[in-house]
Amino acid sequence: MPTDASFDLGLISPATAGRDQAVADDAILRALVEAEVGIVDALVAEGVAPAGISGAALRDVALDARALAREAVAGGNPVIPLVAQLRVGASDDLMPWIHRGATSQDILDTALMIVAKDAVGRIRADLSRVERALEAFAAENADVVAAGRTLTQHAVPTTIGLRASGWRRGATRAIAQLDALELPAQFGGAAGTMAAMVEIVRASVSTQRSQNGAAEGRHAAQAAERPPIDCVVLEKVQAIRAAYADAVGLAHLDAPWHTQRFPVTELGDAVTQAIDALGKMATDVATASRTEIGELAEPTGGGSSAMPQKQNPARSVLIRSAALRAPQLGATLHLASALAADERPDGAWHAEWPALRELLRLALGAASHAADLAEGLRVDRDAVARTLAATDGLIVSERLSAVLGKDRAAEVVAQVAAGADLATLVDPALLDPSDYTGLARAWTP
Amino acid sequence: MPTDASFDLGLISPATAGRDQAVADDAILRALVEAEVGIVDALVAEGVAPAGISGAALRDVALDARALAREAVAGGNPVIPLVAQLRVGASDDLMPWIHRGATSQDILDTALMIVAKDAVGRIRADLSRVERALEAFAAENADVVAAGRTLTQHAVPTTIGLRASGWRRGATRAIAQLDALELPAQFGGAAGTMAAMVEIVRASVSTQRSQNGAAEGRHAAQAAERPPIDCVVLEKVQAIRAAYADAVGLAHLDAPWHTQRFPVTELGDAVTQAIDALGKMATDVATASRTEIGELAEPTGGGSSAMPQKQNPARSVLIRSAALRAPQLGATLHLASALAADERPDGAWHAEWPALRELLRLALGAASHAADLAEGLRVDRDAVARTLAATDGLIVSERLSAVLGKDRAAEVVAQVAAGADLATLVDPALLDPSDYTGLARAWTP
Amino acid sequence: MPTDASFDLGLISPATAGRDQAVADDAILRALVEAEVGIVDALVAEGVAPAGISGAALRDVALDARALAREAVAGGNPVIPLVAQLRVGASDDLMPWIHRGATSQDILDTALMIVAKDAVGRIRADLSRVERALEAFAAENADVVAAGRTLTQHAVPTTIGLRASGWRRGATRAIAQLDALELPAQFGGAAGTMAAMVEIVRASVSTQRSQNGAAEGRHAAQAAERPPIDCVVLEKVQAIRAAYADAVGLAHLDAPWHTQRFPVTELGDAVTQAIDALGKMATDVATASRTEIGELAEPTGGGSSAMPQKQNPARSVLIRSAALRAPQLGATLHLASALAADERPDGAWHAEWPALRELLRLALGAASHAADLAEGLRVDRDAVARTLAATDGLIVSERLSAVLGKDRAAEVVAQVAAGADLATLVDPALLDPSDYTGLARAWTP
Amino acid sequence: MPTDASFDLGLISPATAGRDQAVADDAILRALVEAEVGIVDALVAEGVAPAGISGAALRDVALDARALAREAVAGGNPVIPLVAQLRVGASDDLMPWIHRGATSQDILDTALMIVAKDAVGRIRADLSRVERALEAFAAENADVVAAGRTLTQHAVPTTIGLRASGWRRGATRAIAQLDALELPAQFGGAAGTMAAMVEIVRASVSTQRSQNGAAEGRHAAQAAERPPIDCVVLEKVQAIRAAYADAVGLAHLDAPWHTQRFPVTELGDAVTQAIDALGKMATDVATASRTEIGELAEPTGGGSSAMPQKQNPARSVLIRSAALRAPQLGATLHLASALAADERPDGAWHAEWPALRELLRLALGAASHAADLAEGLRVDRDAVARTLAATDGLIVSERLSAVLGKDRAAEVVAQVAAGADLATLVDPALLDPSDYTGLARAWTP
Repeated sequence: MPTDASFDLGLISPATAGRDQAVADDAILRALVEAEVGIVDALVAEGVAPAGISGAALRDVALDARALAREAVAGGNPVIPLVAQLRVGASDDLMPWIHRGATSQDILDTALMIVAKDAVGRIRADLSRVERALEAFAAENADVVAAGRTLTQHAVPTTIGLRASGWRRGATRAIAQLDALELPAQFGGAAGTMAAMVEIVRASVSTQRSQNGAAEGRHAAQAAERPPIDCVVLEKVQAIRAAYADAVGLAHLDAPWHTQRFPVTELGDAVTQAIDALGKMATDVATASRTEIGELAEPTGGGSSAMPQKQNPARSVLIRSAALRAPQLGATLHLASALAADERPDGAWHAEWPALRELLRLALGAASHAADLAEGLRVDRDAVARTLAATDGLIVSERLSAVLGKDRAAEVVAQVAAGADLATLVDPALLDPSDYTGLARAWTP
Repeated sequence: MPTDASFDLGLISPATAGRDQAVADDAILRALVEAEVGIVDALVAEGVAPAGISGAALRDVALDARALAREAVAGGNPVIPLVAQLRVGASDDLMPWIHRGATSQDILDTALMIVAKDAVGRIRADLSRVERALEAFAAENADVVAAGRTLTQHAVPTTIGLRASGWRRGATRAIAQLDALELPAQFGGAAGTMAAMVEIVRASVSTQRSQNGAAEGRHAAQAAERPPIDCVVLEKVQAIRAAYADAVGLAHLDAPWHTQRFPVTELGDAVTQAIDALGKMATDVATASRTEIGELAEPTGGGSSAMPQKQNPARSVLIRSAALRAPQLGATLHLASALAADERPDGAWHAEWPALRELLRLALGAASHAADLAEGLRVDRDAVARTLAATDGLIVSERLSAVLGKDRAAEVVAQVAAGADLATLVDPALLDPSDYTGLARAWTP
Repeated sequence: MPTDASFDLGLISPATAGRDQAVADDAILRALVEAEVGIVDALVAEGVAPAGISGAALRDVALDARALAREAVAGGNPVIPLVAQLRVGASDDLMPWIHRGATSQDILDTALMIVAKDAVGRIRADLSRVERALEAFAAENADVVAAGRTLTQHAVPTTIGLRASGWRRGATRAIAQLDALELPAQFGGAAGTMAAMVEIVRASVSTQRSQNGAAEGRHAAQAAERPPIDCVVLEKVQAIRAAYADAVGLAHLDAPWHTQRFPVTELGDAVTQAIDALGKMATDVATASRTEIGELAEPTGGGSSAMPQKQNPARSVLIRSAALRAPQLGATLHLASALAADERPDGAWHAEWPALRELLRLALGAASHAADLAEGLRVDRDAVARTLAATDGLIVSERLSAVLGKDRAAEVVAQVAAGADLATLVDPALLDPSDYTGLARAWTP
Repeated sequence: MPTDASFDLGLISPATAGRDQAVADDAILRALVEAEVGIVDALVAEGVAPAGISGAALRDVALDARALAREAVAGGNPVIPLVAQLRVGASDDLMPWIHRGATSQDILDTALMIVAKDAVGRIRADLSRVERALEAFAAENADVVAAGRTLTQHAVPTTIGLRASGWRRGATRAIAQLDALELPAQFGGAAGTMAAMVEIVRASVSTQRSQNGAAEGRHAAQAAERPPIDCVVLEKVQAIRAAYADAVGLAHLDAPWHTQRFPVTELGDAVTQAIDALGKMATDVATASRTEIGELAEPTGGGSSAMPQKQNPARSVLIRSAALRAPQLGATLHLASALAADERPDGAWHAEWPALRELLRLALGAASHAADLAEGLRVDRDAVARTLAATDGLIVSERLSAVLGKDRAAEVVAQVAAGADLATLVDPALLDPSDYTGLARAWTP
């Protein structure tokens, strides 16, 4: 195994292993290259770079990823060595346009958003699987009356369908939040002013004017060298920014967000919310899978070779492990946002990358496991009925309190605790849990 | 001072002291009462409770807040003793309708949302002050060219106006996120099924039918006792839920969110985002206030009696202290959401309340301080010009690299470092920082 | 209720309400005064201030706590207005020595450590109650064989005693960590150099020398005005620092820790560890209290008036709510430590106070609830036996695998699942769970 | 690049890339194998496994790491497939003793502690480099008087040496905490009772007794099959646990810590404390490196090709990025500890591994960068003198207040602000900053 660089193939990350290629280093490297492709293509699109070149050629440059990782340390990011490698590998006509007018942060922020967009798409797809599967599951189990539990204790009846509908609502809301995300390209130049690009465009415009001017017989050459920064220049720079967003397939924001990091925190929050929703489901499934409860079972339990009676809720466990970690990663993104000092911060920006990536990784893993879980979730109706009866009928005690009054209800409870049969003490019509599920049916579409 | 209960008047919370009445215990107590008022009024509105009563009377019941706090411990929340106090203080006709069909969580969740709505309104108002003040500040300083800094080092020129516009964008985005929030009432009953309310409405409907039936001469009495739970009943229960949301002035969700806690995390995330945006501004102001930089000053510095030359950026310090704390509180809300087990969780729900309150408190304090800061922020243009010149003109070295080529630019930098005058080495037209601010003007509305 | 300052009497903090007076604002105010008392007394002890005065008089000065909270905002801390109030209330001879040579941070850090020392003492006392109670509980239940559970599933047998011994070990370790804490006084002056105190002592020494000199007939007056800062001076300043630590009852560190915050993070970590240990116990008790399990019950359950069959594990719920919040507060302390910039940081210091206080508050509440819980914890041995039998004897399947081989064991498990009686398939001697508890007895002292 | 498993070579982790091999997946895989080696060797050492075999042979088994990562998902950890691969690769006589009596958690916890021990050793070594370098640096700069800063403002003089001594104290304390760590082996069996091992030893002892018995002519065969679990058996099991800890080079705890996770949180806390201490240094170096301050410079700045005047404090930036992330990872470990339910938790255990590993990784990176930084840190004494003079002498205003009285001092400050020369207003003997550094020299060893 390699020892010249960090190396992680997911050995101790079962919650995410094998489901996180979308954010693996090779995906990030491809996205970094795409961001550089976008720079070239935007310049070509706006007529600043010659029409004969194309950023696409950068995709074919052979890169030494390990060297990039190694060399990323000195300058604090991998873009500096990447640009060097791309320049070495590019044709002579392409070379001068690589990374032209951009800064490392433009490329890295854009690449992370490219990766995030892909990851969010996958997470969303798995959440849709969860949503559909839970909808079907809830419908099937709409009338399966079960013990509702508060503070660990049986409280009043509910249904398996209503509980699953709750999980489904969480997933639906998480999808809506992901859909509302704006994942923007970043293009601001060294300090968010686009000054270098203004200079480049100024030169380009002046050359064109000079050519036009020559045709018109004017002495434009000298003026052309340092023409004023006028509307034509500024609008073209704006157009290049828009063309760049278009080229990389991301949203276009009016201004750079190099130190206004809401695109990152909003992404982190939405992704964390998705994990929360799955964590709630996993928590309930893990509880319902307990040996003493056994109401639910994962599609195929994580078996134990030494203890063959065990059916571990392995997916729930992994989803829960993700849910216990995600919020703190989201917190790191907020901290980095609040501490995004100056025109590029002295640490806060660098803290975002691995935290954001790990958060996406957790969401990818959790959503994938959750989709498998939801699609194969099994109910043991006998177990549901058995646990529902665990309080000898007292699951409807709230109704007894309401109908009989608190004092009489407490008396009844005490008598049952002492061994009496509830059905002999109270009108049996009051005791049917299936007649005390409120709006459960109405809320289980 | 009282010693029979926790007691906090903000002695060591200067970031929030005096600005957080909206979330102080008396505000929460009023909101708890409002939630109980809403229950009664919704029942009256839908004709279940008699038209002659009104929840408003509950506002006049004298409450012993310290006793509530003390008694909240046994049951784990203050609603149980509150209902007892309200019942003692209410008239006989009102008494039976108090808390009818509700559970503690309905009241507490609703009360926290009532408080949150008020707090968010105040936070938003102060953010609007920040937004307006920064817009004016940016306009005034749109042409004040200043050193742009990345990784602590002078990079390329920017303007004071553009920097302030960045802060303004952060505030504007935070406002939009607050405006998008949906702060819902909670009404689900013991386990989120509204079963008790269905029972109450069933009885109410049956009584009415029986009365109607009597008028029609039918023997409806017996059937009335246990009539079927039909559409009339279910729709009335839904109507009561909607009337409740209306009564307490909150959004109405189709279903309870007792263990789907996205309303809480979305609130927490938006509030944290607001604090982030203010934290970024405070971080930059604190830096610019450094004795060696002195470009910006808070309206009135936090003076030091022993060191009269000091002008501490006291508001920035307090805002930053809030920004360092908020993300972890937001993380707690997400954890609680992911661990919202069963129909009411065994700890996660209780973990939310103080975390949410403290988060709101921090936002109230930070926004208030930020509004004062933004409205009185002062620029020292001499200091801005002095620091801009700190690199002896090399702040435009990026342009030199672009125009002269990297090798020549590096040569020039070395010569300047060795004492040469940059203006003698390079065409002075290239050296004017105000001619190298890119789109700064365009991005400063 | 007051509306001129933040106000919190614990209405929504049932985990801590009524158990946190040690860290309430009045305790902090008393500690702030004690810190000022210590300054005066240290100066008197070392002969710098006149022997006739005593810091103790400061304890009798009437203070307006609400005004302090209000005025703490402007300067960012309550010490500035406190010193003003103390000076107004003090006698003329005491007045000039108040806060002499100290800075706000000295007083606030010292006061927080005074409060922390008291709080840690109480937490420790409650942890000792937990420890003793669990030791007795474990001894009583050393032979109560119970289902051991991994990943929610019955795995192999354990004992109630061994499980409780595990909790006890957690408490014991937490106590050891608390005992190892060094809670130091802070005394460094404006920027951690004690320069002002050196000046004060220099003047004091020179006066004394001059007096001695006069007696000896030497012309010492002029020299006395600006005598050199010699060993005598420096050692006296060091002695004052030691006397101060002594006066306030805290540890003496060789140097100030104004921006080396390990005393704060070590305190936070130890307190969080204590909460973790209690959280583990509460988590297990909550699980064992589940209606379907019922092995354990809290001393007196948190009843529900509407659902009288419920016995909510209210203490476990509150302890767990504390355990879900504490780690993020501890994280804030670490962040503040890492960001303790300059000689006093611009926000990180201020972020510590409320976070540290809330952490102590959570530990006070959790430890108090845990002590009550542990002292009254009840076992339902029938329930333990019933759940142990829930897998029809397969709780010893690991042993069957080992003795019979995996293939045969899997066969047996399948047959039992299909309805066969395990006792007819396997030598009954292998099936007794009480014969398969390993070292459980040895590890239950 | 591989796409069949997660893959991370550190492309976006410059804070740690190339410095974290100690915790990379191949190191973890080696440690997992070592843990399995330890099981075999402990059994051999105690005479349970035959003397002819040795765990060392397991080190030579060829393993498919990617397959392990892939297969870790189903069972939730990599140990199950690892044992399968080891068994396939082992000799027939070794095979039955592999993983004998152990559970996955034993191996994984032990492996993580093996890795942690190595990592902590490296972190400690780099902290020692930091300590030594700072001691030398402080000594060299003991008399370099510099501006002391509080809340971003010049307060009173300090020295470069004293500031560095503060950082050194932080490092020294962090080393002490690392040295105090107890990193234990884990060996508890399926649910922390060692029941399987008791069975194995019982059989082994009975066989030996039977052989002895045969020699002695006794009919021991039958009894041997199920002999009592006596002291001999129990002590041998304890001895095996101790031999195991010895074999893997870790501390031996009296009892398993499978769900008492203080060894993990204490490790996490100590490592976070180390990062905090380095973060404080990095924060100060980054500030002192600001273009306007320039007092300190990193050994070789992170240059910018486009802006050659920049000398980015690249190491400080990376260390700070680590310091902003570490506390939240530590919080995750505490949460996992508090939620370590049952005899193996349903998610909390799994949440620990990647969080702990990332925390170690951050500490490895931060310590390595910090050592390089400290060893090459450069002072610009001219810049120090220049910034010290930035307040036109008022850096000693605290002394003026003390000597002249507050009113006169304020007057003087106002006159200086209006343009007056301080030296004409006040006895120049009072104005020398080097005469107002208190105990700075005494605290700079």
